[in-house]
Amino acid sequence: MSCHIVILGATGAVGREFLRIMEQRSTPVGELRLLASSRSAGTKVEFRGQTQCVQEAGKGAFDGADIAFFSAGAAASRQWAPIAMEAGARVIDNSSAFRLDDGVPLVIPEINPQAVGDARLIANPNCSAIIMNMAVWPLHRRFGVRRIAVSTYQSASGAGFRAMRELEEQTRDVLAGRPPVPRVLPHVAAFNVFCHNSVVGPDGYNVEETKIALETRKIFGDPSIAITATCVRVPVLRAHSESINLTFAKAVTEAQVREALSQAPGVRIVDDRSRNHFPMPLEASGGDEVLVGRIRRDASQPDGRGIELFVSGDQLRKGAALNAVQIAESLRFK
Amino acid sequence: MSCHIVILGATGAVGREFLRIMEQRSTPVGELRLLASSRSAGTKVEFRGQTQCVQEAGKGAFDGADIAFFSAGAAASRQWAPIAMEAGARVIDNSSAFRLDDGVPLVIPEINPQAVGDARLIANPNCSAIIMNMAVWPLHRRFGVRRIAVSTYQSASGAGFRAMRELEEQTRDVLAGRPPVPRVLPHVAAFNVFCHNSVVGPDGYNVEETKIALETRKIFGDPSIAITATCVRVPVLRAHSESINLTFAKAVTEAQVREALSQAPGVRIVDDRSRNHFPMPLEASGGDEVLVGRIRRDASQPDGRGIELFVSGDQLRKGAALNAVQIAESLRFK
Repeated sequence: MSCHIVILGATGAVGREFLRIMEQRSTPVGELRLLASSRSAGTKVEFRGQTQCVQEAGKGAFDGADIAFFSAGAAASRQWAPIAMEAGARVIDNSSAFRLDDGVPLVIPEINPQAVGDARLIANPNCSAIIMNMAVWPLHRRFGVRRIAVSTYQSASGAGFRAMRELEEQTRDVLAGRPPVPRVLPHVAAFNVFCHNSVVGPDGYNVEETKIALETRKIFGDPSIAITATCVRVPVLRAHSESINLTFAKAVTEAQVREALSQAPGVRIVDDRSRNHFPMPLEASGGDEVLVGRIRRDASQPDGRGIELFVSGDQLRKGAALNAVQIAESLRFK
Repeated sequence: MSCHIVILGATGAVGREFLRIMEQRSTPVGELRLLASSRSAGTKVEFRGQTQCVQEAGKGAFDGADIAFFSAGAAASRQWAPIAMEAGARVIDNSSAFRLDDGVPLVIPEINPQAVGDARLIANPNCSAIIMNMAVWPLHRRFGVRRIAVSTYQSASGAGFRAMRELEEQTRDVLAGRPPVPRVLPHVAAFNVFCHNSVVGPDGYNVEETKIALETRKIFGDPSIAITATCVRVPVLRAHSESINLTFAKAVTEAQVREALSQAPGVRIVDDRSRNHFPMPLEASGGDEVLVGRIRRDASQPDGRGIELFVSGDQLRKGAALNAVQIAESLRFK
């Protein structure tokens, strides 16, 4: 049965990835409507060899839709979600607008598919939370994670297409001896790292870090798990990496962790010590799997309760569009 | 009183930084002899407006020297340290050759200057260990750090000049659509991050990570401190950054931590939450201070014993040449 799909934010980095993923997965798309802000309306986009014209979002744009993917920011989600649901669509929202709302499922299909139920609005988690939890959940489920301390190496794509282009332009400028000028991101991105470009709260955590903590607890259904995150932008284009330090309820062995991860869906172990080959964003880019490696006992937790991991995952795919399409598949196509 | 100085490894990234720092600090250099391998012998180098010719290291090269700075790798240090000491020089060695040897002081002058004593061979610590400990020591001394969990964002300069040039060349290649080719570093450096390019041991830690743990314990004179490190290369040219998670013996407040760091020599607090302005490698590059920020209570340690920090420091300066020149100053110039 084919499906009438609407994409809000179709010209953005995640919006275009929705189309690529639905092409690759042979998603049974019947009618497809592409929406964006007035600024991007009129843009031509290819889907399955046909040129589609992006329209400005407006009343009636969601009529007849089965599924609406939203990726145009939290304000647009708040504006259009009630209208899309009223028109009969089930909304899968990639923004942070509703993620923590009671009654809105926050879903990673490999972790909590049962949370979807018959909800008409389903939230797609933060990209860093998805990528981290693809590796942490299989361990939490089996062994009980008590604490997560994570430091991220986040790509420009999380700030959108314009940030990716800015990183490239600034890098060209630096190599040519011209001063790089930050316009989209708050600091020079080329050959630099900086605190994630979200508001820093009175507790000193930026919003990205707080999202990781709150969303992970909701996805796991475990409000007791202790989480601290440090979110950092690095000069990488489209995959996030994360250094993850775990404390378990009781001692676990490296072998137990490897075994659990080797069976985890959507995860690929990349952990070749002899060749010093571990997860890298370049190798995660464009792929569907979250790469997991640097698996080792944490030497600083001598009771054997600590494990170190390093992960890389494509921010636009599993961190955003792929996860949303998987949610849609669980609703309609299977 | 002026000083007869020899630099072994004078054409390397750290070797050239020795010269720049001695110029800037008006080090009372009398005679200066620059040494390198046969490959680099004959290279011309400027010091205080005069051109110096780099000679091949050989017998007699250290005769009359007061201080010999070594930065030509561990094998060269093992070969030449006995000869330099026999010739009467005090050797300050930037390699890892002797750092953990009993009787060889491992010194950060802001932390353990007393360790130098009358040693004829003094080891300069690993760059990541120096930069981390400039921030951690003032807290350890006052409040007692029990555990350090650190993830690094390390620049290409730690692997030398050729790695810095390789990062630039690869980045040019990527921007021009050419495939980047790793020659010096084991993986593509441009727009990528990867596990530090040192041997990975049977415990899963790479040698850089093990250095941080073992050297920190020696410098602090505290074998009980628990340390886990994850060392990662990022596409940055010459300053290292580190995300540091600390656990103290008892609860400490953010205010206590700020106050201790504000008084620490060689450290500058960069921690403007309203402007999202924190330590960045671009701002640490070329400077002497280690920048410290993102100071906040670790929300995952509800007993108040956890603190998060983020630091950036110039790898070639405080991470290597500056620290060595400061050691020399404590020997001779003051």
